[in-house]
Amino acid sequence: MNLGPGKEFDRIRAIISRIADVLPEHEPLGDDCALLPVGGTTLALSIDVSLEDVHFRTAWLDFKEIGFRAAGAALSDLAAEGASPLGVLVSLGVPPQSGTKTDPAVEIMEGVAAMCAQVGAKVLGGDMARSEKYVIDVCVIGRAEQPVRRSGAREGDSLWVTGYLGGAALALDKLRNGERPSKPLRDRYARPEPRIAAGRWLAAHGGGATAMIDISDGLSQDVQHLAAASGVGIEIELERIPCWEGVQAIAAVASGEEFELLVTMPPPPAFGDAGVSSFRTATGVALTRIGTCVRGGGVRLLDHGKPVPLPPGFDHFA
Amino acid sequence: MNLGPGKEFDRIRAIISRIADVLPEHEPLGDDCALLPVGGTTLALSIDVSLEDVHFRTAWLDFKEIGFRAAGAALSDLAAEGASPLGVLVSLGVPPQSGTKTDPAVEIMEGVAAMCAQVGAKVLGGDMARSEKYVIDVCVIGRAEQPVRRSGAREGDSLWVTGYLGGAALALDKLRNGERPSKPLRDRYARPEPRIAAGRWLAAHGGGATAMIDISDGLSQDVQHLAAASGVGIEIELERIPCWEGVQAIAAVASGEEFELLVTMPPPPAFGDAGVSSFRTATGVALTRIGTCVRGGGVRLLDHGKPVPLPPGFDHFA
Repeated sequence: MNLGPGKEFDRIRAIISRIADVLPEHEPLGDDCALLPVGGTTLALSIDVSLEDVHFRTAWLDFKEIGFRAAGAALSDLAAEGASPLGVLVSLGVPPQSGTKTDPAVEIMEGVAAMCAQVGAKVLGGDMARSEKYVIDVCVIGRAEQPVRRSGAREGDSLWVTGYLGGAALALDKLRNGERPSKPLRDRYARPEPRIAAGRWLAAHGGGATAMIDISDGLSQDVQHLAAASGVGIEIELERIPCWEGVQAIAAVASGEEFELLVTMPPPPAFGDAGVSSFRTATGVALTRIGTCVRGGGVRLLDHGKPVPLPPGFDHFA
Repeated sequence: MNLGPGKEFDRIRAIISRIADVLPEHEPLGDDCALLPVGGTTLALSIDVSLEDVHFRTAWLDFKEIGFRAAGAALSDLAAEGASPLGVLVSLGVPPQSGTKTDPAVEIMEGVAAMCAQVGAKVLGGDMARSEKYVIDVCVIGRAEQPVRRSGAREGDSLWVTGYLGGAALALDKLRNGERPSKPLRDRYARPEPRIAAGRWLAAHGGGATAMIDISDGLSQDVQHLAAASGVGIEIELERIPCWEGVQAIAAVASGEEFELLVTMPPPPAFGDAGVSSFRTATGVALTRIGTCVRGGGVRLLDHGKPVPLPPGFDHFA
């Protein structure tokens, strides 16, 4: 497996080297999803943990939003594989229920259910245990007809990103400072929309995405995983980054908690202006070309042609 | 869904009633596993969370044991469905790594891998985040050729349990009191063996198990779920309970953290002495008849024919 740099990924690399005998053959651990062939179907599986005071604070989000957000973050991994959701399993750690108030566990699961209803997923099962702090862990299972890994980008492919970046970090900054972000801005953090339809479209059209990843740890970090897994270099043109209103391009590149897709597509004529137009019509989501895959390795960020340092993304253990 | 009594199950019932629109049709949430038909295969899925200071203490178990135990507990749900494991996905919450010491995250995953190797499961994926307390959440996926639910027990079926009960609770008592349990006793808590082969055998032989559940919350509690789901009454003969050495029968009935199977089988001639003998030869595991399914509902515990109160099982929120 080839992952980008970072302490979190050093720990993951150490784990992988020690449990090699129980890893699936021919399956690169470290992709957004594991792929499991079952009777003519390829299943895509992923798990995503959300912890109180790490991924969210109860002062910032209500319990429905906490559930919605945790499920959306997990389902984003299916989107990045070009997969269609089938269902989720959810483990909850919750404090004992106090009095006759509405049960936070029920509200969290209502949020999970609302997210699932949007993408056609079922709640297949769960577990619940007593915990001082809230824990929500969501395992997602989907069907991947044309799975897209991180590893297929080739020299000459163009690099694209969905949506507008930087809103999630800006919303978080405002919440941390005790400000009240506008509803659309707050929703970028509180109610992320996994790009399921976008991922499926990109897997199936325009020659087919060659590599895809979601940018939940920030574009600057996740692009390094894609480059490392594919064995290509990547040049990003900073001035092309689609920014959320009021966000600087360099902040948009660093912003974590973005559940947009970073994708490499074959060069024109396979995928060009007509493809972008079809994509927007089909999904209602913006798609912007921000760079190119080149020979070599690593990621270079260019501001009007001049190299600038790549900002750090989110590392749980930095 | 029909679950037995308890505050934990009241919360689960409240969740289920509020998210009914995203539950799978014809699928009773609350079984050990969810069943998902994919192609011509039936997948069995379950998720099981282990929390520091709730399910384990780092003073009692080393990190490999913590991982082994968490994976074994999750795989036990596949055993209770009569399913064969395919793989696991694991979310870890772990503190930042201190210095150059062995990384607990690596050791936990070595334990998970050792458990998986025993039952032929692969580690398909995972997630890791910073957490003050250790969190291990394991989602298991298996194949169920002849899935056994909790709901199929019928009047006249006999009730059986695998193994010897009460060792896990006795080991925990000793650990809590600062004593050192013997290696075999300690292993009943620290290294539970999911009864995968036993579950598959019982699903496929002797007329086929009519209902099955693992007794991780204690026999006294889990038998109530089985009775409620099947719509039968159950009479248990206390003097028949197979006890771990030095454990009283009533303590064995209450002992949680037991990863044995409680199973109902058709009455003789479909399943009798010859069946028990074949089972023991095939699996090396003890199987003891402890009761009978009767008309009506609820569970009655009889000590040489005289009713005695059913001890409470483990409730996370009691």
